[in-house]
Amino acid sequence: MTAPQSSPRLDRDGEVFVLDLGDGENRFHPDWLTAVGALLDEVEQTEGPKALVTTATGKFFSNGLDLDWLFAHADQAGAYVESVQALFARVLTLPFVTVAALQGHTFAAGAMLSLTHDLRIMRADRGFWCLPEAEINIPFTHGMSALIQARLAPQTAHAAMVTARRFGGVDALAAGIVDATADEAGLRAAAVELARPHAAKAGPTVGTIKERLYGRALEALREKDVALG
Amino acid sequence: MTAPQSSPRLDRDGEVFVLDLGDGENRFHPDWLTAVGALLDEVEQTEGPKALVTTATGKFFSNGLDLDWLFAHADQAGAYVESVQALFARVLTLPFVTVAALQGHTFAAGAMLSLTHDLRIMRADRGFWCLPEAEINIPFTHGMSALIQARLAPQTAHAAMVTARRFGGVDALAAGIVDATADEAGLRAAAVELARPHAAKAGPTVGTIKERLYGRALEALREKDVALG
Amino acid sequence: MTAPQSSPRLDRDGEVFVLDLGDGENRFHPDWLTAVGALLDEVEQTEGPKALVTTATGKFFSNGLDLDWLFAHADQAGAYVESVQALFARVLTLPFVTVAALQGHTFAAGAMLSLTHDLRIMRADRGFWCLPEAEINIPFTHGMSALIQARLAPQTAHAAMVTARRFGGVDALAAGIVDATADEAGLRAAAVELARPHAAKAGPTVGTIKERLYGRALEALREKDVALG
Repeated sequence: MTAPQSSPRLDRDGEVFVLDLGDGENRFHPDWLTAVGALLDEVEQTEGPKALVTTATGKFFSNGLDLDWLFAHADQAGAYVESVQALFARVLTLPFVTVAALQGHTFAAGAMLSLTHDLRIMRADRGFWCLPEAEINIPFTHGMSALIQARLAPQTAHAAMVTARRFGGVDALAAGIVDATADEAGLRAAAVELARPHAAKAGPTVGTIKERLYGRALEALREKDVALG
Repeated sequence: MTAPQSSPRLDRDGEVFVLDLGDGENRFHPDWLTAVGALLDEVEQTEGPKALVTTATGKFFSNGLDLDWLFAHADQAGAYVESVQALFARVLTLPFVTVAALQGHTFAAGAMLSLTHDLRIMRADRGFWCLPEAEINIPFTHGMSALIQARLAPQTAHAAMVTARRFGGVDALAAGIVDATADEAGLRAAAVELARPHAAKAGPTVGTIKERLYGRALEALREKDVALG
Repeated sequence: MTAPQSSPRLDRDGEVFVLDLGDGENRFHPDWLTAVGALLDEVEQTEGPKALVTTATGKFFSNGLDLDWLFAHADQAGAYVESVQALFARVLTLPFVTVAALQGHTFAAGAMLSLTHDLRIMRADRGFWCLPEAEINIPFTHGMSALIQARLAPQTAHAAMVTARRFGGVDALAAGIVDATADEAGLRAAAVELARPHAAKAGPTVGTIKERLYGRALEALREKDVALG
């Protein structure tokens, strides 16, 4: 079901790194997780002012968990979900400012990944941000539930999680899921300009601030061998 | 003080159950709690797709605790408040989508009951949603406090709880207390149409999602022998 | 760096006390903390209906911690931060309604002090509400982090804490940081009229309601010998 797709890649625009998650559905295959982790290592190891924009190419930002792989490797589910949650915890506490540029559909764990960024900007005219778990019968883990709840207003988190409401860009802005919208052509550049003024804040203080803000969610996200369901 | 009133009753509109809390002040008399519990049993035991609308008839959705009964049975206060909080915990975790249609005044524990539903729709032109506890000198129990705080934005919860602000339908929508408003004549039908598309989501996943979302509030609501004050 | 300034003073307008924090930067020098504490004692010890407006004179509401004093007394930092957090916990649970009237810049711990009040009203045309900690490399303590998070919507708390965004009055109102705005000339009077109708609520119930609302933040704020950083 998952189409062949390009690997995640990292570019740089001055002090702003741009992480492109791929041009397919950008589901979290174990190899994809490894590739994204290595690119984040590269950003982390770069000295000096910096910020990060995460985006993708084409119709999807990310559709989340690689359910095909997961069903074929049910015995590895605990370690797999642990590795996804470790990515969430890592991005949530990166010691520099991060912006997710949602140029396409942002679903399920892909939507959760967007919430681990400091700011979100979304294409206004097409694409949905959606947590379809209530429809596909996969309950949120404790860590996922705590993450979503920590980043969204109570009313928004509830509607998104229980009714699987699909938010277009305009609705997502009104509900406080994203901080800005842009047209397709200008989205990536707008995200870079949103991130750039914060590059000077890179450093351990910003990491500590995020760590303390999300203590409870991080504890749940860092659980080992996580059961889905 | 509590006027004689009709008993709670259950109707059905296709896959949507409609629970009418009564045509009086619909205060939580022990017999009323028993009747509502039995009707919820009936909904829970029905197989297949389903959703629930809770509403009432006349000027009041509900005025909450039956203070006349409570003052006359002070020795049973702990068990009484425990039973009210058990109702809150039950509705908050029902394994199907629930909509409260607030056709009249929704006060105190009646307002809390509205918050245990997934969505709320309120008459726009008349009636108030209000937590008057700060004015009538009854502090919220830990469970009630956690419930309100879990469902409302911080600023809204604070103003509602500390200043006893009365929200009309329009203000309640702006503050995120309700998700929609309607005119009196169309309210019940609008609530049913809000609930209907979610009937297919009935099942244990939705129950688990809600249980994990509100873990902390549920723990406090499930406390035994609760002191009011 | 801290200019000489007038001491905090207390006035009264009927049932509403007006606490003026001073006409300088109103940083939290130990003597200033002692003076404010004594004026709060005076309000607390007054019997009968009452409410409190906290404001200041001139360009600043407050710039927060007295960093000059702190750098000169690094050995007393733990006790100093403990005393600041004790002030936050005290105002957050005062058993009467409190309104902060932000007539000037409200920065860092000054902004946190504003959040300990029940309601906030801010000058619309000039002055900023800002948490600059991410820029000046002082992470929030656990108590400060919990306080901010308990009083602001998740999106607002995150942007304020991680990106050090400066909110003018209009933006602060839109983000739910303040509950109203006014022009400079009318601000103090508007705050008094916002507080006055709530004077009759003064009493232990309101104190208990606030104590239960903010249990987790209060626990962190009441920590002893607090490390900054």
